[in-house]
Amino acid sequence: MEFTAKQIAEILNGTIDGNPEVSVNNLSKIEEGKPGTISFLANPKYEPHLYSTKASVVIVNKDFTPEKDFSATLIRVEDAYQAFAKLLDAYNQIKINKSGISDKAHISGSARLGKNVYVGEFAVIGDNVKIGDNTKVYPQTWIGDNTTIGENTTIFAGVKIYSDNLIGNNCTIHAGVVIGSDGFGFAPQGDNYMKVAQIGNVIIEDNVEIGSNTTIDRATLGSTIIHKGVKIDNLVQIAHNVEIGENTVIAAQTGVSGSTKLGKNMMIGGQVGIVGHLNIGDEVKIAAQSGISKSFRKGSIVQGSPAFEYVKYNKSYAVFRNLSNLWERVNELEKKIKE
Amino acid sequence: MEFTAKQIAEILNGTIDGNPEVSVNNLSKIEEGKPGTISFLANPKYEPHLYSTKASVVIVNKDFTPEKDFSATLIRVEDAYQAFAKLLDAYNQIKINKSGISDKAHISGSARLGKNVYVGEFAVIGDNVKIGDNTKVYPQTWIGDNTTIGENTTIFAGVKIYSDNLIGNNCTIHAGVVIGSDGFGFAPQGDNYMKVAQIGNVIIEDNVEIGSNTTIDRATLGSTIIHKGVKIDNLVQIAHNVEIGENTVIAAQTGVSGSTKLGKNMMIGGQVGIVGHLNIGDEVKIAAQSGISKSFRKGSIVQGSPAFEYVKYNKSYAVFRNLSNLWERVNELEKKIKE
Amino acid sequence: MEFTAKQIAEILNGTIDGNPEVSVNNLSKIEEGKPGTISFLANPKYEPHLYSTKASVVIVNKDFTPEKDFSATLIRVEDAYQAFAKLLDAYNQIKINKSGISDKAHISGSARLGKNVYVGEFAVIGDNVKIGDNTKVYPQTWIGDNTTIGENTTIFAGVKIYSDNLIGNNCTIHAGVVIGSDGFGFAPQGDNYMKVAQIGNVIIEDNVEIGSNTTIDRATLGSTIIHKGVKIDNLVQIAHNVEIGENTVIAAQTGVSGSTKLGKNMMIGGQVGIVGHLNIGDEVKIAAQSGISKSFRKGSIVQGSPAFEYVKYNKSYAVFRNLSNLWERVNELEKKIKE
Repeated sequence: MEFTAKQIAEILNGTIDGNPEVSVNNLSKIEEGKPGTISFLANPKYEPHLYSTKASVVIVNKDFTPEKDFSATLIRVEDAYQAFAKLLDAYNQIKINKSGISDKAHISGSARLGKNVYVGEFAVIGDNVKIGDNTKVYPQTWIGDNTTIGENTTIFAGVKIYSDNLIGNNCTIHAGVVIGSDGFGFAPQGDNYMKVAQIGNVIIEDNVEIGSNTTIDRATLGSTIIHKGVKIDNLVQIAHNVEIGENTVIAAQTGVSGSTKLGKNMMIGGQVGIVGHLNIGDEVKIAAQSGISKSFRKGSIVQGSPAFEYVKYNKSYAVFRNLSNLWERVNELEKKIKE
Repeated sequence: MEFTAKQIAEILNGTIDGNPEVSVNNLSKIEEGKPGTISFLANPKYEPHLYSTKASVVIVNKDFTPEKDFSATLIRVEDAYQAFAKLLDAYNQIKINKSGISDKAHISGSARLGKNVYVGEFAVIGDNVKIGDNTKVYPQTWIGDNTTIGENTTIFAGVKIYSDNLIGNNCTIHAGVVIGSDGFGFAPQGDNYMKVAQIGNVIIEDNVEIGSNTTIDRATLGSTIIHKGVKIDNLVQIAHNVEIGENTVIAAQTGVSGSTKLGKNMMIGGQVGIVGHLNIGDEVKIAAQSGISKSFRKGSIVQGSPAFEYVKYNKSYAVFRNLSNLWERVNELEKKIKE
Repeated sequence: MEFTAKQIAEILNGTIDGNPEVSVNNLSKIEEGKPGTISFLANPKYEPHLYSTKASVVIVNKDFTPEKDFSATLIRVEDAYQAFAKLLDAYNQIKINKSGISDKAHISGSARLGKNVYVGEFAVIGDNVKIGDNTKVYPQTWIGDNTTIGENTTIFAGVKIYSDNLIGNNCTIHAGVVIGSDGFGFAPQGDNYMKVAQIGNVIIEDNVEIGSNTTIDRATLGSTIIHKGVKIDNLVQIAHNVEIGENTVIAAQTGVSGSTKLGKNMMIGGQVGIVGHLNIGDEVKIAAQSGISKSFRKGSIVQGSPAFEYVKYNKSYAVFRNLSNLWERVNELEKKIKE
């Protein structure tokens, strides 16, 4: 598909500097822009690329003032980054627009599917499953009995959702994710362990995104809960009975242990480990690779394993880098004192 | 299904305090207990919930003495937690009781299946595979040629087991687990690497549980061995030729490198890394996020990256938290000495 | 299949010490060697096993001089380890030699398959997919629309490759790998986040091996690129727009954040975390569990979280182990100064 700068400006509610009839058929980064593509400039650091880019159209912020000549047509908008993200999204929607129910899928007679649902080949939809309108279930996905999935949700290939779980509206769940596997619960019995059956479930609210091969365990009793707007990256582990507050963001390979409650709007770096039974406040920020061994108050910024206050950690670590020097200086002092 | 307190007390070999005819149809946590559910009280910390819970029946330890009024019927047993776990398990068995061979599965003509086996849709059972009685193979699972699986084992959806492996009795393998992929072995050849073929296998003994999306590599030669009773959480990596002793428990996202031998009854925290070719003693405990770079003796408790003795680590870390203070004090001492 | 020592010596271009007619039908480790197997001795540490092994044939380096008696026939070659690896590989090729297109696979009418391709049961091959000669696609694999796969590549069971990606020749991709899932990109919008669509792709060049359940995200725009000869272990996370230089080796559970560029011939230990937007030089070595927060120059060897120079890290860590001792000594010094 091709669009003119004029057509795009209308969609984005923007104004044009340059030729409104120039047309584009793809998106690009400004530093790699080719003729026939549209790009954007939001971060002033990238401004020099505007003067050399071959992209035909560049979206910029309303108040942007160029300092040199350039060849692209500009579209001026309120927020160039968000405008570009909208275009990306529209492009993406067109590309992944799968529909129809494959006759190679296995769908239980008791399952209920909404309007305009996509079910790919070799997907298995269990007994009493409900799937909302416009939801996409890609090939080779397993939806266990009694699980309910909302509207406009995308479940990519090979996702495994055990029985009795609830998935909300407008969620995106990437390939290989496992939802509702048993929590890791065992009671010691002499040298052995007895499995503690896990009969709870997982509740995922609206607008949640879950990255590929992430695992979310069902609760022992009750529910593991991912509140609305949470974004979880790839290969993350969420244990049984965890609760994650709204709009919290979790980077890849982080693990949250059983029964811990995370606040809203937290930012959690990659490879963080959080022990069980904690209660972490809203807006807490955790640096990558930190180990959280106790609860922190709202707004704390922490680092380390075990983690403590971020600024203090970095002061300690600055000394750690020179620790052999400190050791020698103490040796020297002891020698002098002896003298 | 509904059961009276009296019926449950008989199953659990317990005695009743209160109305033996009250009936329940689900299990609950004592702090969230609703009418018609059964709960338990084992940890004295939770005792206050007994006096407010709406659960109809609560299982308690034989010698428990309440200090206030409460509404629930009590069932007194030897060990309240284990009794409740038994109930959970019975409830779970009823729920996941799948059976039959789907005609949408692909089963090689040379495979041999025991009695009462479940094979779900789109599972692939390779040549010469043997599956024991009462074993469940969920949808979309791949069992490679010549692999043998014991009795009463559950393989959840999408598990991938390569050829020539052995899985024992009474195992539970969760969705997305990969067993028998190639060990990570490459021989340098100038700037490139030559792959070292991995022709060994994986042996998993009885009563092992493996969490979702965990990976266990086959041996280069010989076998990667998981001994009986081992419990492995989600997203764990077990490299080629590793051997894990009986009843060792490994939390999520831990990795064990090639040819390392772990002892029996170890407890390994989450996100631990263990280098290759070590020999770790029985009952060693490793704190979360530790890095194990050398062998430790039986019963050691260790922490750190690289790890050393737990108590000593924590003493060092207590000073680390105040390291900039120590630095300043040494500066001060040097100044005074100069004077 | 059985081979005589003489036949194997011819294949390996080696010379024989002992009975050339002894025959073998399997490979073994020298310390576990049984009659009828062939083993190798490269590391002098293992030499004592030669004098006790029951392996019928042992491959050794050309210049090896035994110091005691032994029963095996020797085959002398230029490099015993590489010669043995070649044998392993030949054995492996025979074992995994699957072929044919399953009529239970789903292959789009617009897909183009080369000669001698294997497609297993319940695989899904999307629209406009191209697959080169001699490539194997195992059961339950998903190849999204417009993806191209080269020749002699093996894609094991359950791999999920999204649309529009490129996979090279002679690659091995293990079970459960996800390639081309969305990068983790969200733009803050008040308390919420707006998803940034990810419309780029993943390019994997020739001779790359990727371990089970590893995830590689597609680029936002442009490509995530894995250059030729790269070896990636299990459960590794590669974020959007990352570029990995030729022949770099990455151990299990490591994560590389968005837009970071890794050099050639790097060696990266397990559970390493690398932040985004860095540029790491060729041949850099990173110790396991390190956290890389800044770019390092060619040939650096680093450790720590955040990482710095390896030797210096280890000096600091040696003091860290005795940090409470240092603290007490400073207390003592202060006391003495006061006096």
